[in-house]
Amino acid sequence: MRTKIKQVLLAKEPSRLEEKEVIVTGWIRTVRDQKAFAFIEINDGSTLTNLQVIADATLPQYAELMTQLTTGAAVSVEGILKKSPGKNQALELHATKVHLYGACDPARYPLQKKRHSFEFLRTIAHLRPRTNTQGAVLRVRSAMSFATHLFFQQRGFFYVHTPIITGSDCEGGGEMFRLSTTKPSEEFFGKPAYLTVSGQLELETLALALSDVYTFGPTFRAENSNTSRHLAEFWMIEPEMAFADLKVNMECAESYLRFCVNYALEHCAEDLAFFDQFIEKGLLERLKKVAHTPFAHIPYTEAIAILKKADRSFDFPVEWGIDLQSEHERYLAEEYCQKPVILTDYPAAIKAFYMRQNPDGKTVAAMDVLVPKIGELIGGSQREERLDILERKLEAFKLKKEDYWWYLELREYGSVPHAGFGLGLERLVLFITGMENIRDVIPFPRTPGHAEF
Amino acid sequence: MRTKIKQVLLAKEPSRLEEKEVIVTGWIRTVRDQKAFAFIEINDGSTLTNLQVIADATLPQYAELMTQLTTGAAVSVEGILKKSPGKNQALELHATKVHLYGACDPARYPLQKKRHSFEFLRTIAHLRPRTNTQGAVLRVRSAMSFATHLFFQQRGFFYVHTPIITGSDCEGGGEMFRLSTTKPSEEFFGKPAYLTVSGQLELETLALALSDVYTFGPTFRAENSNTSRHLAEFWMIEPEMAFADLKVNMECAESYLRFCVNYALEHCAEDLAFFDQFIEKGLLERLKKVAHTPFAHIPYTEAIAILKKADRSFDFPVEWGIDLQSEHERYLAEEYCQKPVILTDYPAAIKAFYMRQNPDGKTVAAMDVLVPKIGELIGGSQREERLDILERKLEAFKLKKEDYWWYLELREYGSVPHAGFGLGLERLVLFITGMENIRDVIPFPRTPGHAEF
Repeated sequence: MRTKIKQVLLAKEPSRLEEKEVIVTGWIRTVRDQKAFAFIEINDGSTLTNLQVIADATLPQYAELMTQLTTGAAVSVEGILKKSPGKNQALELHATKVHLYGACDPARYPLQKKRHSFEFLRTIAHLRPRTNTQGAVLRVRSAMSFATHLFFQQRGFFYVHTPIITGSDCEGGGEMFRLSTTKPSEEFFGKPAYLTVSGQLELETLALALSDVYTFGPTFRAENSNTSRHLAEFWMIEPEMAFADLKVNMECAESYLRFCVNYALEHCAEDLAFFDQFIEKGLLERLKKVAHTPFAHIPYTEAIAILKKADRSFDFPVEWGIDLQSEHERYLAEEYCQKPVILTDYPAAIKAFYMRQNPDGKTVAAMDVLVPKIGELIGGSQREERLDILERKLEAFKLKKEDYWWYLELREYGSVPHAGFGLGLERLVLFITGMENIRDVIPFPRTPGHAEF
Repeated sequence: MRTKIKQVLLAKEPSRLEEKEVIVTGWIRTVRDQKAFAFIEINDGSTLTNLQVIADATLPQYAELMTQLTTGAAVSVEGILKKSPGKNQALELHATKVHLYGACDPARYPLQKKRHSFEFLRTIAHLRPRTNTQGAVLRVRSAMSFATHLFFQQRGFFYVHTPIITGSDCEGGGEMFRLSTTKPSEEFFGKPAYLTVSGQLELETLALALSDVYTFGPTFRAENSNTSRHLAEFWMIEPEMAFADLKVNMECAESYLRFCVNYALEHCAEDLAFFDQFIEKGLLERLKKVAHTPFAHIPYTEAIAILKKADRSFDFPVEWGIDLQSEHERYLAEEYCQKPVILTDYPAAIKAFYMRQNPDGKTVAAMDVLVPKIGELIGGSQREERLDILERKLEAFKLKKEDYWWYLELREYGSVPHAGFGLGLERLVLFITGMENIRDVIPFPRTPGHAEF
């Protein structure tokens, strides 16, 4: 049985592992040949730090072995764990047997021991998970995905799968990809079919049966935007709650976000320390603050007043009715509130048709969670549950009632107040890691012109 | 704060809830008007069983209320929990206040209290989650999804997302959907793009960096098959392990399946009892057996001999080299072994190019897990990690090396033995629930001609 490097280096009581015989497998990061022995650093992806292996020159075939043990080579090392005299690790492995699985030609391997630009690494997406940064990103991404399931399952939500392929091109919210088969003349589904931009409408059918549900799956946008915040394919988390109003929705979003931050602080401490040191100075402090401070709450109308009074100028002029730009959102979260803030009650005209109309007739029960560093991280609303108002909204938005027959029936048969929100996993990972470009927090980014691998 | 019906009816110590004041919300399943009072059964989806509410005729506006409280209507009920004299439940709710959220016209509501065929219910997929069977299926589906994450996270696997949109049409394993945008003349990704049929090839890049990974996402087949076992869109779980051979792979698959069965038996007891009573008699016994009996292991060559000796005839003749049909697989699992069986070492010609060649030169280190009731539930293999053999396999399969440049590089730079498998979530849910048709275990099934909702 092999031991994972995480079990050695993150052991609660390393001293109990001293003198233990173990087998460790992994890929070589560096070798320092000291003639009488060599230091070999190996990594198996289970944790950020490499395990230091001491290979003595008395090992069988030592000279030949040393020509093969190069950066990137895969090995298994049998040996005895010893207290390390170095101060970087508690334990090191004294090899009794080194086995080479697969060599790695130093003249050809693109990942030599030096800093590579993130742009370059995207061109070798099949190898970049072997770098420190990508390894850490992927571990945090996995932890945030699991934390999401934990949070909602603990609260009694059911995980449901809304369809990826949809027959309706009318979900709102962006350009869609269209499907065809190898016989383009035939429609596989009997009519045009598209890739979903959001599971929300279908999710409501499940909330109005199971009460609390969430979906977590890929969504798509066929938009030609080349920014550090947009992908053509990304993963979205969408909870939906029956018998819930905007207040319940806000509490859920805030608790969820805080749960994720705490989960990362607790389970990804080593990776977060790495990001704090090399990617965003002050990351840990920022996250700890989010974990401990209640979010601010500001109605949109008040936010507009705050922005107008701000002693700085914005590229986009501020007027009641505008869709807030990233500069406005970040001012509110980073400068004015200096913590996450939930904006509520947006003008009806700039929000989707399904958001619940407020008594003032001008605004809807929408909410956006804005956070320092990212801007909008979560968008949600209470949904319009009143059939007559929803029908009027469809008309006002020039949408056809026939296309929404089943969505309208939810309001006809046992309608209830309900609410939900959506959060893009990649933006959450940017928020937690301090990474700047969304292409660097998903293993195989899809953007205009790019669907390699 | 509302109380979910599950918290009342599945309470460990119901007696501690007696005389407690609670608010419960849900949808009415039935009303029995007894003049002096009414029995109202309500369900909120949190659990299978309805909560019995006693509404006394002395409630304000009782007569008017009774005209509105019909099957499908949404209500909140405030009241006091009392010990129930009936034997079907420990507690019942004596209403002090009934609030109607949304009525439900009995003349129009399609879900009246009677048995509906599963075929009919598929035409109202937006309402069918409100039926007993669909509610139970969805709860089990959620539990199996979460159990999957729990199992792999506890074993130190990282959850990774392989791409849904892929630029390669050469993954093997079935017809693919092709993407286009509203401007069909332009390629959004600069070249043709497709929907993935499996994340495995990309998954291997992540296993060869993080050691143990899994993916869980939608996959697609543009095949015109109208069977009770096939969907155009389904969810697949794919683990991949570095430093692992077929033996490790088999252990993982067996442990995973047993974990899921045990999780269902423990966390979905009420729903499984329902399936055992109404869907498949003997279900619980079948599942308990899977939970407690080690799986059988039979090499393909031996399985062929067993099938040839079987005292029954098959529609498809049995010869070494054939791809086993469902009738063969079910005979082996249901009759010969009477428990799950792992078949190994299939002929190279009937398996994918990436499976590892055995020393005999004729077979590959493949494994299929066959289970009673379903047939093949899991398919996997050790992967070919030797560059020269993999290149020869590509040639033999008439596949172009250029298309696999990055996949081949994994064998050039630090190659290691690795293995993995794939399991369709919907087949797992069929296996756990005893349901017969795959269209009834996914909320919005996509099949040829069908992409409604």
